[in-house]
Amino acid sequence: VSAGQREQGRRLIFDAIRAHGPVPRIELSAHTGISRATVTTITAEMLARGLIEETLPDEEARGAGRGRPRVDLKLRGAAHLVAGVKVSTSDLSLMLMDFEGRDLAVGTHPLERGIMSPDRLVDEVATALSDLMAREGRTHDALSGLGVGIAGIVDALRGFVHWSPSLSETNVDLGAMLRARLGIPAIVDNDANLVAVAEHRFGLARGHSDFVVITIESGVGLGIVLGGDLYRGSRGCGAEFGHIKVQLDGALCRCGQRGCLEAYVADYALLREAALIMAPDRDHPATLARLLEAAHDNDPIAQSILTRAGRMFAMGVANLINIFDPELIILAGEQLQFDHLYSEAVMDAIRASIVQVDKPPPEVVVHTWGSKMWAMGAAASALDHVADLALAGMNADAA
Amino acid sequence: VSAGQREQGRRLIFDAIRAHGPVPRIELSAHTGISRATVTTITAEMLARGLIEETLPDEEARGAGRGRPRVDLKLRGAAHLVAGVKVSTSDLSLMLMDFEGRDLAVGTHPLERGIMSPDRLVDEVATALSDLMAREGRTHDALSGLGVGIAGIVDALRGFVHWSPSLSETNVDLGAMLRARLGIPAIVDNDANLVAVAEHRFGLARGHSDFVVITIESGVGLGIVLGGDLYRGSRGCGAEFGHIKVQLDGALCRCGQRGCLEAYVADYALLREAALIMAPDRDHPATLARLLEAAHDNDPIAQSILTRAGRMFAMGVANLINIFDPELIILAGEQLQFDHLYSEAVMDAIRASIVQVDKPPPEVVVHTWGSKMWAMGAAASALDHVADLALAGMNADAA
Repeated sequence: VSAGQREQGRRLIFDAIRAHGPVPRIELSAHTGISRATVTTITAEMLARGLIEETLPDEEARGAGRGRPRVDLKLRGAAHLVAGVKVSTSDLSLMLMDFEGRDLAVGTHPLERGIMSPDRLVDEVATALSDLMAREGRTHDALSGLGVGIAGIVDALRGFVHWSPSLSETNVDLGAMLRARLGIPAIVDNDANLVAVAEHRFGLARGHSDFVVITIESGVGLGIVLGGDLYRGSRGCGAEFGHIKVQLDGALCRCGQRGCLEAYVADYALLREAALIMAPDRDHPATLARLLEAAHDNDPIAQSILTRAGRMFAMGVANLINIFDPELIILAGEQLQFDHLYSEAVMDAIRASIVQVDKPPPEVVVHTWGSKMWAMGAAASALDHVADLALAGMNADAA
Repeated sequence: VSAGQREQGRRLIFDAIRAHGPVPRIELSAHTGISRATVTTITAEMLARGLIEETLPDEEARGAGRGRPRVDLKLRGAAHLVAGVKVSTSDLSLMLMDFEGRDLAVGTHPLERGIMSPDRLVDEVATALSDLMAREGRTHDALSGLGVGIAGIVDALRGFVHWSPSLSETNVDLGAMLRARLGIPAIVDNDANLVAVAEHRFGLARGHSDFVVITIESGVGLGIVLGGDLYRGSRGCGAEFGHIKVQLDGALCRCGQRGCLEAYVADYALLREAALIMAPDRDHPATLARLLEAAHDNDPIAQSILTRAGRMFAMGVANLINIFDPELIILAGEQLQFDHLYSEAVMDAIRASIVQVDKPPPEVVVHTWGSKMWAMGAAASALDHVADLALAGMNADAA
């Protein structure tokens, strides 16, 4: 058995335990095609390192109780602790997650400003993490890894932020800054990509290898999974959806270009138009809530604003379907407030705008996650990274 | 060595001979990682079946001439003969290709009608092939395979045409009809996909594994290659570009929907607008030529028509770049007549409409193939199919 095969075997077995655990060794052999002897050797290593643990199945699974008691393997939750942080324009949302993927704690850290310097953002993340860990009676030294999700154009392989609406500077090596400041492994990725990871691991895309996640918040995000992996494009900045153009010479976008989908669909775009009929509140969400309420109360201008946003959104989603023809499209949102984008009228418009063939259209599902969606994606990705490091460490020691 | 490993070995060695031939056995071993003994066994089988042949390298490559003379292997051109046919609205264009990928003959078969029944199309293809083969002193029995490219929505795995502008019926099992009529293996695919195959094998995408080909003819086509393979989507009908929407409630498209890219860029869209300033000629290309001439002569309306087409096209291409971030985009055209879509102004508009990051934008290149582009793509794909069948035959005999 070569080092490469041993490494591949560890990865296969680890993934199988994560996907199927608690699971007996004999089933791991069946799932991976690896011999029972090698499964025993590799899982012994993992047990010795505390990455996995043995558990007794419950009575029923154990059967009649004859013979040697069956022992299952599963990831050991206490093996590693990671944090996920999502940067939004109003706050940081945080989650602590154990190695099994259980969320242990969540938190919110308000931000004074929606746009800040990279140094300031790193300070805010450090403070927010310390606060959350202190609440749990720990320090951030207990963390094995950090995942940060942020809107914008991110080269995730480097943790490099080309542009983000949250940062006052472009081309920021945020990953390196966080690693230097916190002294732990840290990954940075586009926030919608991380939601795609969370949908894949914990959400509606479990068992799917090809799907598209569209996130709706202050902006519009896209995560594409092909063959089980995030699709990132050749320069690491593919899957950009908010800035596809839906109107030639159209509305001005905060990116400086005209006609971007975001310039019709994002909350700032709605608020810009809402100024015609209502004075702005102190905070944007309150104004947005009044706009949505006015539309529900049949205010024709409010309805016109939301209807156009919905139709532009449908056009963008339909274009995505025409190009990718994915098996599943998940519209992932934190709250129900964007239901003008999830309405039956929007779904009908999507179906009417895709190329018509004699097959059922791709499934479009709405997933309203609640507030922890974003941080969970960031934590799930941190978990992947920590698992990669742990497995690479086993290989290095074995070599 | 298991049957599966042997099969994989045959495929690897065949592909290496195709990519690198003429090539000595020892280099095949280096390219594939397969032992020299197994390379010798497998190539002996292929020689016995006449799929490959030995050749003596030229003086220089042979070196000083000491020792046993070096012998190279290459595909044997005479092993199989295939035909490629592209269906357009005015004619069929055809190509005969040998197993080495050399084009032996080309032909054109005029069509009385641009839209016809599936039976009629099969008749036309059979007649056109017989004529071409007769000109070469052969019958179509000499063909090992046929590839047909057609505009529209095609499920290539089945050769099933959901919709094509060339057919009066939808949901046509054209592959099965052609196989039944001609008695030879036949594949049917979207014409732009086949051009992507040709670019990959013979054109500007040699050595690239991730690229996008946009074809411009009477319609606009798209072929996407990811990881070396055509990307087809989950229902076999992805990569649909002509019918992405570029304008909400926009111009009426021949597909029946509104605002499709084709409804602004395709020749029928240009001619529809040209009717304002010029009476139609008997044939569309003549009218189109006059429109292009009028624009070159500074007719403001003609220029307005072409400029808008170019700007809509740029918007569509920029959207594709934002979503896929490919390393290479090839605008493949048969003729220079569409230079309003290839102009510097269009290239500038593409660059201005993609998300701006601190990296060079993807390379956009124009490939003006001349008239044989489409048929060559169809023939190249037929060649792949025949090679698959030949290798599968070796496996079946070995089993």
